[in-house]
Amino acid sequence: MDMNAFLNNCAALVDTALETYIAACIGAPAALLDVMRYSVQAGGKRFRPALALGACELACGDPMPALPGACALEMIHTYSLIHDDLPAMDNDDMRRGKPTSHKIFGEAVAILAGDGLLTLAFQVIGQRGNLAAIHELARASGIEGMVGGQYLDTQAEGKAITLDALKEIHSKKTGALITASLRIGALLGDGSDHLLDCLTGYGEHLGLLFQITDDILDVTGDSAALGKTIGKDQEQGKATYPALLGLDQARALADETAAAALATLHSFGSEADIFRRLIDFLRHRNH
Amino acid sequence: MDMNAFLNNCAALVDTALETYIAACIGAPAALLDVMRYSVQAGGKRFRPALALGACELACGDPMPALPGACALEMIHTYSLIHDDLPAMDNDDMRRGKPTSHKIFGEAVAILAGDGLLTLAFQVIGQRGNLAAIHELARASGIEGMVGGQYLDTQAEGKAITLDALKEIHSKKTGALITASLRIGALLGDGSDHLLDCLTGYGEHLGLLFQITDDILDVTGDSAALGKTIGKDQEQGKATYPALLGLDQARALADETAAAALATLHSFGSEADIFRRLIDFLRHRNH
Repeated sequence: MDMNAFLNNCAALVDTALETYIAACIGAPAALLDVMRYSVQAGGKRFRPALALGACELACGDPMPALPGACALEMIHTYSLIHDDLPAMDNDDMRRGKPTSHKIFGEAVAILAGDGLLTLAFQVIGQRGNLAAIHELARASGIEGMVGGQYLDTQAEGKAITLDALKEIHSKKTGALITASLRIGALLGDGSDHLLDCLTGYGEHLGLLFQITDDILDVTGDSAALGKTIGKDQEQGKATYPALLGLDQARALADETAAAALATLHSFGSEADIFRRLIDFLRHRNH
Repeated sequence: MDMNAFLNNCAALVDTALETYIAACIGAPAALLDVMRYSVQAGGKRFRPALALGACELACGDPMPALPGACALEMIHTYSLIHDDLPAMDNDDMRRGKPTSHKIFGEAVAILAGDGLLTLAFQVIGQRGNLAAIHELARASGIEGMVGGQYLDTQAEGKAITLDALKEIHSKKTGALITASLRIGALLGDGSDHLLDCLTGYGEHLGLLFQITDDILDVTGDSAALGKTIGKDQEQGKATYPALLGLDQARALADETAAAALATLHSFGSEADIFRRLIDFLRHRNH
């Protein structure tokens, strides 16, 4: 299966399941559910869910046991975007080609929609009854992972930082949840310890590659294809790989990182091809 | 044991355990842990943890199995205060006698500290391996509970609402987590279905009593004893029980609610006395 078909299949599964989970919250204010839907169903690539579903299929031949985990991961990712876009944080007006949540619904409601999605993620992943997966989600999305990375990023804004500091920020801010997506998928598919170890290594390189290519796109991409404002990082004085290394060196680091990610899959055959193709896909994406 | 001694004992247990859980997050930025400590260790009464510990003791004779759940409940409560105090929400400058988190650390960091505490709560309660307790916490603190109530409250601000609408707001905004505190304590103590049912009814009346007395204190209390700004509700045009019913009728409703709460405990002997005393305690508190 080619990468676009795989991502589209995953997205179709996840879009439907996300709506099912949201619609099941019959005790919640209907208007608040619509605020959450506005951001959750904004046409995201469902990258983290796809990692979880792919890892689960690699573990047990079936992606479906990971579906609640995949939806929980997307809820966490979406809440983080809503909160990151707030005026007090990155102050972004556009996201996935639409006005951000706080631009439409106001800051108070956007904060609450984010809090609601974060909490619902744990309700949903809890349904699979896998405590290791719940722990993985909490650790990767919390202060030792994504929230911690976001904090470090906030503190680093406008300051000169080293390449190592930048790597630490990104390994927490985006890398932790990417690696957790793979691990949660493998855990929900009852994968072996060997599979978990390999996917952990793969995820660490993948997260770095994802961030470098994201930073490069912020310099070279076009706003319409990306669905967000371009040049925002530079304008805000954010440290990025192109800013620290120059564009050519950033591209070289992306190539090295891609090779290291592929090496973690050497003990798997064609059943892991989707994860090999993903590396090429990220390396050459334009949005 | 009298109520103050019980609350003090619970607070001592919970204060120590909360610090242990926070200090264990060795992968988190140290400065962010301090921001969380600032709000978590601000001398709260630990009311929700006390409910969980008391319910667990009623279930199995020992409060300790509920300690992780008690700490998770306090983390959820604290995150909700940090987010509610934000300028976009209630815009409060003082909380528990100290400047609010965003006044000291800025809005971005306060939002992240709240997100971090919310996420850590699920990491901590997950340690007990009780999926029913995790589900209870997610449901009561999310869009069908606390976050949903906060949303309804935000939407009702400055509008004329009915007594029934006010009760719905409060049963979600504060009642859900109070009832969940009792249920989580009972679940972690392997309590019987009968105990869970009785504590659920007790919690619903207790939550209402808590809110009515809180509203009354906002009118009649003094700022120093409460550690927060007085008259804030009225100033913001918030619907409260005294505003809707008048002070005398609000006090009468508090008395009725207290009696209904006590009635739910009729099948228990002296082992439930702490929950009987709590009703008197709330009825006559001045902060």
